[in-house]
Amino acid sequence: MKLFELNESSVRSYCRSFPVVFDQARGAELITRDGKSYIDFLGGAGTLNYGHNHPVLKEALLDYIDNDGITHGLDMYSDAKERFLETFSRLILKPRGMHDYVMQFTGPTGTNAVEAALKLARKVTGRSNIISFTNGFHGCSIGALAATGNQHHRGAAGVPLTDVSRMPYANYFGDKVNTIGMMDKLLGDPSSGIDKPAAVIVEVVQGEGGLNAASAEWVRKLEKLCRKHGMLLIVDDIQAGCGRTGSFFSFEEMGIKPDMITLSKSLSGFGLPFAMVLLRKELDQWKPGEHNGTFRGNNHAFVTATAAIEHFWRDDQFAKSVRAKGKRIADGMNKIVRRYGPYSLFIKGRGMMIGISCPDGDSAAAICRHAFEHGLVIETSGAHSEVVKCLCPLIISEAQIDKAMTILDAAFAAVMSEQTANQASQAS
Amino acid sequence: MKLFELNESSVRSYCRSFPVVFDQARGAELITRDGKSYIDFLGGAGTLNYGHNHPVLKEALLDYIDNDGITHGLDMYSDAKERFLETFSRLILKPRGMHDYVMQFTGPTGTNAVEAALKLARKVTGRSNIISFTNGFHGCSIGALAATGNQHHRGAAGVPLTDVSRMPYANYFGDKVNTIGMMDKLLGDPSSGIDKPAAVIVEVVQGEGGLNAASAEWVRKLEKLCRKHGMLLIVDDIQAGCGRTGSFFSFEEMGIKPDMITLSKSLSGFGLPFAMVLLRKELDQWKPGEHNGTFRGNNHAFVTATAAIEHFWRDDQFAKSVRAKGKRIADGMNKIVRRYGPYSLFIKGRGMMIGISCPDGDSAAAICRHAFEHGLVIETSGAHSEVVKCLCPLIISEAQIDKAMTILDAAFAAVMSEQTANQASQAS
Amino acid sequence: MKLFELNESSVRSYCRSFPVVFDQARGAELITRDGKSYIDFLGGAGTLNYGHNHPVLKEALLDYIDNDGITHGLDMYSDAKERFLETFSRLILKPRGMHDYVMQFTGPTGTNAVEAALKLARKVTGRSNIISFTNGFHGCSIGALAATGNQHHRGAAGVPLTDVSRMPYANYFGDKVNTIGMMDKLLGDPSSGIDKPAAVIVEVVQGEGGLNAASAEWVRKLEKLCRKHGMLLIVDDIQAGCGRTGSFFSFEEMGIKPDMITLSKSLSGFGLPFAMVLLRKELDQWKPGEHNGTFRGNNHAFVTATAAIEHFWRDDQFAKSVRAKGKRIADGMNKIVRRYGPYSLFIKGRGMMIGISCPDGDSAAAICRHAFEHGLVIETSGAHSEVVKCLCPLIISEAQIDKAMTILDAAFAAVMSEQTANQASQAS
Amino acid sequence: MKLFELNESSVRSYCRSFPVVFDQARGAELITRDGKSYIDFLGGAGTLNYGHNHPVLKEALLDYIDNDGITHGLDMYSDAKERFLETFSRLILKPRGMHDYVMQFTGPTGTNAVEAALKLARKVTGRSNIISFTNGFHGCSIGALAATGNQHHRGAAGVPLTDVSRMPYANYFGDKVNTIGMMDKLLGDPSSGIDKPAAVIVEVVQGEGGLNAASAEWVRKLEKLCRKHGMLLIVDDIQAGCGRTGSFFSFEEMGIKPDMITLSKSLSGFGLPFAMVLLRKELDQWKPGEHNGTFRGNNHAFVTATAAIEHFWRDDQFAKSVRAKGKRIADGMNKIVRRYGPYSLFIKGRGMMIGISCPDGDSAAAICRHAFEHGLVIETSGAHSEVVKCLCPLIISEAQIDKAMTILDAAFAAVMSEQTANQASQAS
Repeated sequence: MKLFELNESSVRSYCRSFPVVFDQARGAELITRDGKSYIDFLGGAGTLNYGHNHPVLKEALLDYIDNDGITHGLDMYSDAKERFLETFSRLILKPRGMHDYVMQFTGPTGTNAVEAALKLARKVTGRSNIISFTNGFHGCSIGALAATGNQHHRGAAGVPLTDVSRMPYANYFGDKVNTIGMMDKLLGDPSSGIDKPAAVIVEVVQGEGGLNAASAEWVRKLEKLCRKHGMLLIVDDIQAGCGRTGSFFSFEEMGIKPDMITLSKSLSGFGLPFAMVLLRKELDQWKPGEHNGTFRGNNHAFVTATAAIEHFWRDDQFAKSVRAKGKRIADGMNKIVRRYGPYSLFIKGRGMMIGISCPDGDSAAAICRHAFEHGLVIETSGAHSEVVKCLCPLIISEAQIDKAMTILDAAFAAVMSEQTANQASQAS
Repeated sequence: MKLFELNESSVRSYCRSFPVVFDQARGAELITRDGKSYIDFLGGAGTLNYGHNHPVLKEALLDYIDNDGITHGLDMYSDAKERFLETFSRLILKPRGMHDYVMQFTGPTGTNAVEAALKLARKVTGRSNIISFTNGFHGCSIGALAATGNQHHRGAAGVPLTDVSRMPYANYFGDKVNTIGMMDKLLGDPSSGIDKPAAVIVEVVQGEGGLNAASAEWVRKLEKLCRKHGMLLIVDDIQAGCGRTGSFFSFEEMGIKPDMITLSKSLSGFGLPFAMVLLRKELDQWKPGEHNGTFRGNNHAFVTATAAIEHFWRDDQFAKSVRAKGKRIADGMNKIVRRYGPYSLFIKGRGMMIGISCPDGDSAAAICRHAFEHGLVIETSGAHSEVVKCLCPLIISEAQIDKAMTILDAAFAAVMSEQTANQASQAS
Repeated sequence: MKLFELNESSVRSYCRSFPVVFDQARGAELITRDGKSYIDFLGGAGTLNYGHNHPVLKEALLDYIDNDGITHGLDMYSDAKERFLETFSRLILKPRGMHDYVMQFTGPTGTNAVEAALKLARKVTGRSNIISFTNGFHGCSIGALAATGNQHHRGAAGVPLTDVSRMPYANYFGDKVNTIGMMDKLLGDPSSGIDKPAAVIVEVVQGEGGLNAASAEWVRKLEKLCRKHGMLLIVDDIQAGCGRTGSFFSFEEMGIKPDMITLSKSLSGFGLPFAMVLLRKELDQWKPGEHNGTFRGNNHAFVTATAAIEHFWRDDQFAKSVRAKGKRIADGMNKIVRRYGPYSLFIKGRGMMIGISCPDGDSAAAICRHAFEHGLVIETSGAHSEVVKCLCPLIISEAQIDKAMTILDAAFAAVMSEQTANQASQAS
Repeated sequence: MKLFELNESSVRSYCRSFPVVFDQARGAELITRDGKSYIDFLGGAGTLNYGHNHPVLKEALLDYIDNDGITHGLDMYSDAKERFLETFSRLILKPRGMHDYVMQFTGPTGTNAVEAALKLARKVTGRSNIISFTNGFHGCSIGALAATGNQHHRGAAGVPLTDVSRMPYANYFGDKVNTIGMMDKLLGDPSSGIDKPAAVIVEVVQGEGGLNAASAEWVRKLEKLCRKHGMLLIVDDIQAGCGRTGSFFSFEEMGIKPDMITLSKSLSGFGLPFAMVLLRKELDQWKPGEHNGTFRGNNHAFVTATAAIEHFWRDDQFAKSVRAKGKRIADGMNKIVRRYGPYSLFIKGRGMMIGISCPDGDSAAAICRHAFEHGLVIETSGAHSEVVKCLCPLIISEAQIDKAMTILDAAFAAVMSEQTANQASQAS
């Protein structure tokens, strides 16, 4: 551990919560150098939907590398890329009626994809303002950071974060306040001070922001608002996409058609750096190379992503299983809520992107600490880090879910009863 | 090809110059799906210093994957990371007297590393202005793009690019004009209008900008200027580093000590996405997670990078060979220059980062086209794309160099004689 | 008229509504070169609270000029400035318990005062964000324009308007929605995306924005919000101040204590360019000359402002008369509303800053046109220019008010009945 | 004095150098409340070209006020404005072949005029970048401040100052370095990092920047550069215009035709707040009211400005006298230079905008202090406040010049001999 502390920048963070050295990983399990195994409810913050080292993907990658498949080729045509384009088009886009999208491979991180989408929206519309939402997270490079809400990250920008207007997310002011109506008034008022936006960027479920899930109705109204005011609709599906909510895209069943969709995290399927912007063909007004990056088009990721799509998305079995497991986790959580905090705890999120909101960040942190000590890697999210977040691989077994729920139950028991005890002693 | 055109965004660029589908690659060779082989003088724009699929690195990676080594773990501690930290420290930093640097793993692209370095410089100094140079290239996300000079990229920003003051690079105004003296005057003048900069970001050899190589004297003076005016010195060694100029860092023999160094491209050794900021320990004022990204710490890249450093940098044989090959290429180029344009062509660059400046972008493009038709993948750089740029893998064989030089010679012969003929016919 | 069209920029605006050439003006009357007289309900957009060429002020100014009083002295000490400082302190500040404010004389326009206040707020707090409100108007220079809501003006900026977060004004979303509570939630949420503001800038009655009057309760809550979140409270009293609402400051009876107050428009009392920032002494962290301007401290304006304060504000008679006349105007308006649009017209504003909101900008414009043809100079305001705005001099006589009301009544009669007729014919 | 210190913000500055209370002023004389008279070599920082209270202007203003001439009418048509338009057109524009300019009356300060010019340049060209020069001064509101060089002012902005590229003024790097050639290279290089500018804003003689006078050749080349690169040429003639350099505009004899000219300071002739942008008719693409301000079109200033133009500019006598007096002052200064610092002092500037550059700011300040004690109000300018600046009224008498020169001579004698003595004692 010393070696890390001596040589790695203090910016490192997750390792502080999980001070062990991991070496191997399989499916929903992380294994330390000392052979200790943990159930992984962090899931690479949404990057490991198909688990660690999934055998089908691993096989494909080993074969590719073994055969000297081209690894790095900038954005030159490669066989691996062609297979990805064909497969993604055939199994993801076409079955969903999305024939008219093209794919842009940006630098292989979510923030690079967001930067590209915002640039293109501004270029196409000739407007510079972007609407993003309270508690939204879109990345840490300056262009994307301007759209991100988190002050911890914004505060490190070093320059003003401009050309973004912040709007309240669904239910931000409670379920009585119609935030779409508010936006409509602001956008229709020529002296509201909100400059006409090029686009709205939105997560259908906000991951880092605390597992806030917008209703289908809100999302549909948001799309209508975009059409009314000439704004593009960008869905940032980096964390909620690739099956996490029970369908490939998080917005599938909502009946909307975004202008652009950013994907990354679980897109490669194997945890490899990879990012893509899906954009409606008519918006593809890029000049060659106008937005670029050395690692755009990671061929290893093309290979594993193609294998993942072929394996998991050729029919609806996988999606169904995700919904079933999501229910199993929700059931487990409901028990915890009823048992330890029927008035202070509540469930947030959708599909397998759910968690329990705790009274505060301290108790949530204590719960995660306790869980880790008992074999479960799990983290918090939310404005006050108050949500214990379950982002386990979608391929997790029912047994693993149950085991994790047992660990979580014990953690809540320990922390919440201590809290109750403290409150009681303060009250007396 | 149709499939690419239908499904991939028009932003794709290199594939337009090389309209074939590559499938495999080995060492300095790219191989199409049809089995046609090309010598690679593009080298992933500096990403493939150790060639494609180098057997030692490949072996290490195959083993790691085969053994279910952890692929994605955010910034948790991993065995692979520890080995990289230890190896980089032992074989790169310590022998160069750079004990007091720590490593920050940013999102795995160059632009993410630059974003991190600029943020940190601003945070540490409390200033927002950054000096960058004419013809400099530092990436395409908004924070880095502000420091990049290229109008093609800047024009797509969609928002103003702020908080950067542009200064003339070494010899930008010819070798009679002392650009360091100019900067000194501007920085020392309280009404010059140049706000005190947090940092200077500089490439010691400008890759995209046209293989402009600063002299050791200029770089040393620049460091002194930084110290005098309280600016940090950031060397962007993303393209020129990792051995390209004949030493691991491009500035090694110059006797300077940058405050931060950004590395990416060839750092993984295998073409995998990877990026790092080296920073002087006293500047490591990051709070945990303040700058983050999902793919920071790519374990596959740790594995290949560690293997590469062990293999190539345990002694100075490799560096020596780079310098020797650089000379061989320069000799070949000199012949071309003397033969086809003693007054109109000239050599630019340093080490194995060299090229031939042509009279204009059209002739350079024609030369690259001709070369490609004869089996050589090569591209241009420079403000007017006028420099035919040789960025071949450093492990290229002498025979391959000679073959490439023969192809290049023929290309210059064809294009330059045509040009001369055109001029003659215009003159008559 | 030709001469104007040939020689003056097309940016000119009010002259388009009132295409006559004015020559003289007295009290509440404007007189054209041809001797035609108009009642002035425009009042220099709030600049002529004491009427045109008030004899007491005029006398003071004539004496001063005749005696070769210093006109322009930058910010050197002058007798005229000293008398203004003493008088303003004695008759305005002290009786209102505002002992601890100092006066800053900025360039003599409202926008310059706002620029100064925003700069100082940012300097003192070390924050850059400013909260301003929907429909707020604070000026047209870039710093102030960022806080202004009007798109017509914002659209001409030519650069992004940054470092301002827009919030909904009192009742912006109707009287059911608690906009203070909304702000509190946004400001207390560390991932809302609203960076901690240096200050809030607010008009207690929004003039250009459509005579929106905030309640005392809302303003008091806003002040509390400022204290809670460490934001300074800047009241922009440029249009609503100097007696317009029935007290010297528009917020007097509300029991708040702003950190800064910007004044201009009627401050000189004579229509002369003049502007001032009142700031709490502890905020006076300016270094000498840090914010400057050639015409800061207009001595002619000091002279007339001093005379105006001595004449109008040595007791409460004037304030009382303003409230009485405000009521007289409101009564007249009420009759108009009841007569021509009990459901479509309504009264907005406070004191002598009131108007009638019309169904749309076209009808409001038609009403003003009709009124002008019958001897009344009057203009619109509001997001859609839908409010017929009465900003007559506060010294107007009851007879003049009554005459103006008769003209207005006829204008509403003509336009609203025509509207009703149109609607009827469309319906049939 | 106490009253000022108690009640006026610490931002006040000139009064600190001249701690007396002025009351009256006539011609080139300032008179304190105690009856002490000073020769005015500060001249309102260029605002009092025709002296204080010039009898002809004073008479016109008294008559106008006495007759209840309209003082404030926003931008409505007034008789006084019409007379100004006609007179300025007839006596200034037409004789100089400038038939095709229109006049825009902005808020009555220089910075407001600059804000308007920059906005319009950006609007017309669709570009956002502006070139301004080292040591340039253009005002303190955020839009203008971005173009200003002075760090004392820039440092108080509180927000980044963006969309301006700073270029070296004529001779900034000495007379060997061709700064026009440098700009040409930067602007013609598509990867220089200098975005295509909307306009160049330049002072032909830099007042605040230290009386740097560009040669006619440099200015002509600058105009050509503007035409070549599609940039508008804005001459900021706020300080150098209105006769200061020996012709109405500072650039008259240079044979250029600026796209826009900003005027303020001495434009009213009487020290009244007033500002104007002259712009080529084809650039007049303003929509009505797009850029506005309450005090645009100060009628008192129209009256005095018209009188001033009629009196001073109906023939070339006044311009001739300015050139003659400029020479008289220069002769006096030359004697001082030869006497007290043939190697350390030198003369800067042009016409009656000249001064003596001292070894440093301390000696310049000491000289001004000494002069003030002996009856001369004079200030410094320049990056280090090292230039003793003579901006006396142009109507000053020869006797007053000679008297002032005697005072200055004594001041230099006292300070420079002391300096020499100090140096001698340090050396020994």
